[in-house]
Amino acid sequence: MKIAVIGSGYVGLPLSIAFSKYHSVISYDVNKKRVRELERGFDCNQQHSKKEILHKKLTFTSNLDLLKNRDVYIVTVPTPIKSNNQPDLTMLKEASILVGKVIKKNTYIIFESTTYPGCTEEFCIPLIEKHSKLNYEEDFFVAYSPERVNPGDKVNTLKSITKVVGASNYRTLDTVKKLYEQICKSIYSVASIKIAESAKVIENIQRDINIALVNELSILFNKLNIPTNEVLDAAATKWNFHHYTPGLVGGHCISVDPYYLAFKAQQFNYRPRLILSGRKINESIGKYVGIQTVKLLSNNKINLDKAHVAILGFSFKDNIPDIRNTKVIKIIKELQQRNIRITVIDSIASKKEAKKKYKINLYNFKELKKFKYDAIILAVSHKTFLKKINYYNQFYKNKKNKIFIDVKNNYLTYDLKKNYFKYFKL
Amino acid sequence: MKIAVIGSGYVGLPLSIAFSKYHSVISYDVNKKRVRELERGFDCNQQHSKKEILHKKLTFTSNLDLLKNRDVYIVTVPTPIKSNNQPDLTMLKEASILVGKVIKKNTYIIFESTTYPGCTEEFCIPLIEKHSKLNYEEDFFVAYSPERVNPGDKVNTLKSITKVVGASNYRTLDTVKKLYEQICKSIYSVASIKIAESAKVIENIQRDINIALVNELSILFNKLNIPTNEVLDAAATKWNFHHYTPGLVGGHCISVDPYYLAFKAQQFNYRPRLILSGRKINESIGKYVGIQTVKLLSNNKINLDKAHVAILGFSFKDNIPDIRNTKVIKIIKELQQRNIRITVIDSIASKKEAKKKYKINLYNFKELKKFKYDAIILAVSHKTFLKKINYYNQFYKNKKNKIFIDVKNNYLTYDLKKNYFKYFKL
Repeated sequence: MKIAVIGSGYVGLPLSIAFSKYHSVISYDVNKKRVRELERGFDCNQQHSKKEILHKKLTFTSNLDLLKNRDVYIVTVPTPIKSNNQPDLTMLKEASILVGKVIKKNTYIIFESTTYPGCTEEFCIPLIEKHSKLNYEEDFFVAYSPERVNPGDKVNTLKSITKVVGASNYRTLDTVKKLYEQICKSIYSVASIKIAESAKVIENIQRDINIALVNELSILFNKLNIPTNEVLDAAATKWNFHHYTPGLVGGHCISVDPYYLAFKAQQFNYRPRLILSGRKINESIGKYVGIQTVKLLSNNKINLDKAHVAILGFSFKDNIPDIRNTKVIKIIKELQQRNIRITVIDSIASKKEAKKKYKINLYNFKELKKFKYDAIILAVSHKTFLKKINYYNQFYKNKKNKIFIDVKNNYLTYDLKKNYFKYFKL
Repeated sequence: MKIAVIGSGYVGLPLSIAFSKYHSVISYDVNKKRVRELERGFDCNQQHSKKEILHKKLTFTSNLDLLKNRDVYIVTVPTPIKSNNQPDLTMLKEASILVGKVIKKNTYIIFESTTYPGCTEEFCIPLIEKHSKLNYEEDFFVAYSPERVNPGDKVNTLKSITKVVGASNYRTLDTVKKLYEQICKSIYSVASIKIAESAKVIENIQRDINIALVNELSILFNKLNIPTNEVLDAAATKWNFHHYTPGLVGGHCISVDPYYLAFKAQQFNYRPRLILSGRKINESIGKYVGIQTVKLLSNNKINLDKAHVAILGFSFKDNIPDIRNTKVIKIIKELQQRNIRITVIDSIASKKEAKKKYKINLYNFKELKKFKYDAIILAVSHKTFLKKINYYNQFYKNKKNKIFIDVKNNYLTYDLKKNYFKYFKL
């Protein structure tokens, strides 16, 4: 089979690498810098090694002409949201048009991009028909197989997961199933494209809601002076409790996908209250952390104009460099509004990207020792940060340095004998 | 140790039985009928056999005098809600006063009843102090160890679970821990009574929210004509997806506990939006099922005044007789408002109780064959109902009998080749 993968990002690259063991693969990306880097064997997302990337059957390109005459096209472009939380289908539209322009008869097109149920059939396929002048189900066939890439997760990779596949007819389902069987542990077929689209979007919605719940509980328990992490640890000793931790929810999946389903729901005059409540809570956490910090500074009689706060972590998630849609920026904005001086520390996130996208300078951990901070906010739980517990203990032992805010409640421990919290909590 | 257990219900009975292997136990209940039944070895909740109940070291009583001079009192009374969804602490109050009246010095009191954080220390202990004229922490000691009884569950029993224990000081914690270690698999100590109270209440809240989510998704997917159960099954092939099913949420735990925490939150001027959104959705499902049934009857041109609907299941949960706070009643009310004739079928739930509490006659399954129903609503998934798939198939094969509503989506399957649903879904 001659395969073309549209998009060489978090989803497209591992897929291209996996298929290149069995097929000739063209991995296409509009980002020429990304293509040049991949050609040299460098993956800025830190997912794949040079050895994996450089494979004789795998070609990276931004050249449309190379995309012609492939048997299978797999679309893996991002599906972000606009500033008004509506789906931004620009890239999916461009990819569909592109595929429409290059396909020949008897081609299979597989969509992997997360989207709302109905999007593939109602939005993408008409674009392909229009630009190819070919007929769906006669000249070309479409399947939907949602990506399950979990950035930073070395256990649940393409090789080890079950992959869901939905198609509009048995033949397509069978063909696509056999294709993915080569690279995935197992395939789970569903009865329609819509079911596959729905399955993907609700996976992330469930995660969003469960994090929103522990965030809501965390806000409440802070008011009640009850340590959230100890409550969660105790509840987690029940056989069916799911152990989520509070924190910022950013990135391009969990914080985005619920809006896709909400968009579709609103077309049917249905307002998914619970899903949107969850979003609201998770969106509010950055600002909440900022406000709590200001309160703690004021309670400790620290002049805000002279205050200096260190924020640990800038990535949208622990242990990965990705800063897209990071919610740490909301903490920063809240503090900046009060003229509080901020130093952001993150050795994993890309300093260049942070400067370019957010105008934020990122420093390494050693910077913590240079300044005397009035408060430390542990915003993202990179492993490297969690190892520095001795430093935090020292920081806390100095009576002037009382304010240590552990957003994800990693260290907060309550000493029954001494009747105090080891760290200030949120 | 001489133990008194206050309340001989779902929580008190298994606890009394377990402790009677090691200690002399008085199991006290205000319900004289319950006490008489237990004295004969009969448990109307179908949790325990005669052999388990009749034990020489276990005495059942409604006589207060027998409660005097015990070393340990364990309170297991129900904590329901009032019609306005506020905590109904009547029984907890009465139990606290009762304990206050009978305790001597150096007594341990353990609360197992689910409640909001702070309730034990702010509500129960002052009542005990007042009626005993003894001092907390000097003359008597209090712990909180939440019950984790799961009605109908034969796997997760007192013997096999981890039990959370919280107390106000180490000595009490240690004493109570050692006591429960005799009857439970393991003990998880927490640093305060409030943490233990919080852990319990959030366990059920998490469950409520997760069921609310699949209920919200189910309502949406019905509008989109997507089979919810197939979406959930597909999503469940992801390593971290939790497989909940839609349905009615009744009973005295999941549908009640969130209001307890919300009550406490409102004392602190915090409105837990997500938790209350979840409650709202789960409360709405009964009415929703009723409305959908009426719609389907009308769509099928069935005269509502002459319509006859069978409802399968009346218990609040699958495979248990308990009908307390069952939400099936909401389906019934919705249909009765439209003058629809209803036959409710349930061989497990107590016919007497249903008649007494709800004025509902319950019939056995064979009643289904007597009448010609216009619709069947499978409301509760008792195993006995699930075995009757042949009957439902026959029912469905008759073209006039199109309306089969599977509230929990047990059977709904979509046939890709024939392009139809085997049963009408919600």
